[in-house]
Amino acid sequence: MKAYIITIGDEILIGQIINTNAGFIGEKLTEIQVDVVKTSVVPDDEEAIINEFENALKSSDVVIVTGGLGPTHDDVTRKCIVKFFNTDLVFNEEVYEDVKEFFKQHNREMTEINKDQAFVPAIATPIKNAYGTAPGSWIEKDGKIFVSMPGVPVEMKAMMEDFVIPRLKELNENNGKFVIRETLLTTGIPESVLYEKLGNLDEILDGAKIAFLPSQYGVRMRITVEAENEKETKNKLSEIEQRIRSKVGRYIYGKNGELLEEVIGRLLADRGLTVATAESCTGGLIASRITDVSGSSRYFERGIVSYSNGAKVELLHVDEDTIMEYGAVSEQVCKQMAEGVRAVSGTDIGLAVTGIMGPTGESEHKPIGLVYIGVCGEDSCIVKEFHFGRDRILNKQRTSQAALDMLRRHILGIPYDD
Amino acid sequence: MKAYIITIGDEILIGQIINTNAGFIGEKLTEIQVDVVKTSVVPDDEEAIINEFENALKSSDVVIVTGGLGPTHDDVTRKCIVKFFNTDLVFNEEVYEDVKEFFKQHNREMTEINKDQAFVPAIATPIKNAYGTAPGSWIEKDGKIFVSMPGVPVEMKAMMEDFVIPRLKELNENNGKFVIRETLLTTGIPESVLYEKLGNLDEILDGAKIAFLPSQYGVRMRITVEAENEKETKNKLSEIEQRIRSKVGRYIYGKNGELLEEVIGRLLADRGLTVATAESCTGGLIASRITDVSGSSRYFERGIVSYSNGAKVELLHVDEDTIMEYGAVSEQVCKQMAEGVRAVSGTDIGLAVTGIMGPTGESEHKPIGLVYIGVCGEDSCIVKEFHFGRDRILNKQRTSQAALDMLRRHILGIPYDD
Repeated sequence: MKAYIITIGDEILIGQIINTNAGFIGEKLTEIQVDVVKTSVVPDDEEAIINEFENALKSSDVVIVTGGLGPTHDDVTRKCIVKFFNTDLVFNEEVYEDVKEFFKQHNREMTEINKDQAFVPAIATPIKNAYGTAPGSWIEKDGKIFVSMPGVPVEMKAMMEDFVIPRLKELNENNGKFVIRETLLTTGIPESVLYEKLGNLDEILDGAKIAFLPSQYGVRMRITVEAENEKETKNKLSEIEQRIRSKVGRYIYGKNGELLEEVIGRLLADRGLTVATAESCTGGLIASRITDVSGSSRYFERGIVSYSNGAKVELLHVDEDTIMEYGAVSEQVCKQMAEGVRAVSGTDIGLAVTGIMGPTGESEHKPIGLVYIGVCGEDSCIVKEFHFGRDRILNKQRTSQAALDMLRRHILGIPYDD
Repeated sequence: MKAYIITIGDEILIGQIINTNAGFIGEKLTEIQVDVVKTSVVPDDEEAIINEFENALKSSDVVIVTGGLGPTHDDVTRKCIVKFFNTDLVFNEEVYEDVKEFFKQHNREMTEINKDQAFVPAIATPIKNAYGTAPGSWIEKDGKIFVSMPGVPVEMKAMMEDFVIPRLKELNENNGKFVIRETLLTTGIPESVLYEKLGNLDEILDGAKIAFLPSQYGVRMRITVEAENEKETKNKLSEIEQRIRSKVGRYIYGKNGELLEEVIGRLLADRGLTVATAESCTGGLIASRITDVSGSSRYFERGIVSYSNGAKVELLHVDEDTIMEYGAVSEQVCKQMAEGVRAVSGTDIGLAVTGIMGPTGESEHKPIGLVYIGVCGEDSCIVKEFHFGRDRILNKQRTSQAALDMLRRHILGIPYDD
């Protein structure tokens, strides 16, 4: 089964908002073995949309459209569906009740334009919107499937998970080869070094495929394995993974969609360990990432964003003379921050960062991108020096990733110097 | 001049990484009056790529391609360019020197596969890569322009800004009507309420267009104005903006790509005010957003992520009995947190949040999504209650936005209750 994803919206074409919907839909379709052959973005323009409906239905079995279904007058998708499929809008009682219920729950008045949303294309099965008012449409015609959903991510996601994916899965069962994709997530090693450390890829892969995908959070290795059936494919994948881990295992922190903060959370919770953070240059980003994980209150005690020197002295008991002598961005101050936050919060581990994120704050011996990260436990206290780039936001992200990876290595006892 | 953007990469089709490149390129092209007619994503597959090159050149004047130029074996774009334009790869001395220099600067060994990157299509002008090793290509043929750049965002962005955009701007000057797009950023008001408060849109717009774009950070209103020349267009836009502001001005915090944290930063810096934050449920996200802004050390003193009750008592002097009586998520505790962080840090303003982000932590009278936000200054201390949704990450983002907006209203003296 081949799929084509269409995103509608000027705001995406002109870069005002980023197209996260196509990515989410692609991921979900891939999971159920539906092959995404193309995605496109077209403007809020009737002719362009209808044209693209035609292109997409020509080259695929499933077309998934998002965007252009909201209550305000700039939304045109429903109109295009009516034209393209030569159908009518009909009032749907069930959808009307859903919209009414939505407003009741949210304690808001229903407006005239919201009532209009209960009119759906006659050819379509409406898809219930759990988080908003515009329903989706599921249309089957000439052996092809056409799905239209709102562009608001949370609304679209619920429709995909509760309605679209289960239906497509059923329709797509048992057709030929079995394909699995798995991604191994590394951090702290550049793409070309990783590539060289792996050595002969043909030996490792034995006919499977690998792709290297770098970002500020590290390099992801995506492996694609194909075989006759599920069991054989899984066995082959597990052998490949073992061979990769034997060469670069220490850099691998997780798989597929896992986040480093989730991995850390599991490691800490399993061992009954607690952590506190002291951040200067990352300004709270590390604490925010740790607390993105549900249940983090079990192992995260507090975070101090000691942006001023005064806060470092008062809250973390950093020695004023050390700041004067070595500067706030120094190995010495970083160590005292990590020890300090561990002591004041009474946690097992203290994690601290200090650095120069740019674009200002550079000095002769301290360039933009210089960062110190320290992790202190009961028996050990290690500070490492890093050199990142010149972009402030990327530097914050890279620093947070390197800090969480030092925490991971600390917990697992993986050495830092290799 | 019409443009078509092609992104290459399986990882984008299957949703492993989000296509931020197409958005960035769309934004930059729009700024110089180049009309983006379509964007697409195709797999790392020679046939699909070459096919899409053909589609794109048929329907536009400028084709911009990203992805598939890295050093590892999964990158195919260069091969496709050679085939499609029927050209050869030639060794380029200048590119070779750039790659060598890049490795020297980064203190890394040059590998064999990196050397190969100095071979560029004979038909192309190479585009220097300031942040990596793969050069881009600028190709002019039959009156059309074809540009290929690496997929790593920081590399692509520098090429766009330093090379592609200046060249295109020159080529695109003076052809017909003048179009300006401007976006007004609102927060704290739902789309349909905003729409109703605006009233008769035809009167406000006088022939211009408006689109409403909701997200967890608020609703953006994008206005598109077209007229004979730059001056006339700007005048028309400024009149429309005035009419909109007279109706919903208090909800508008900024324009276009501005971030609320940047607006706050300017307001604080201009007035010489300082702020400190006390966060529970947002876990440092508010402090992190404030410190995303360069120069924030002038007005941001410290942030306390008081995740445990102990941290609230110790660091913010919240009264233990108040926590026992009302719970950590309560108006009373929120007020003490805001007052406390202001007092201990000696800043002009204290900003505090406490809430239940989900998916766990719900109780009978305190549902998921319940949040208290407090802002305290010398003379006033206000706490507001909010009800957000059920998604943890969205709730953190919504809470951080509402908190920064309360800070904005506090500084500007805009009332909260309307």
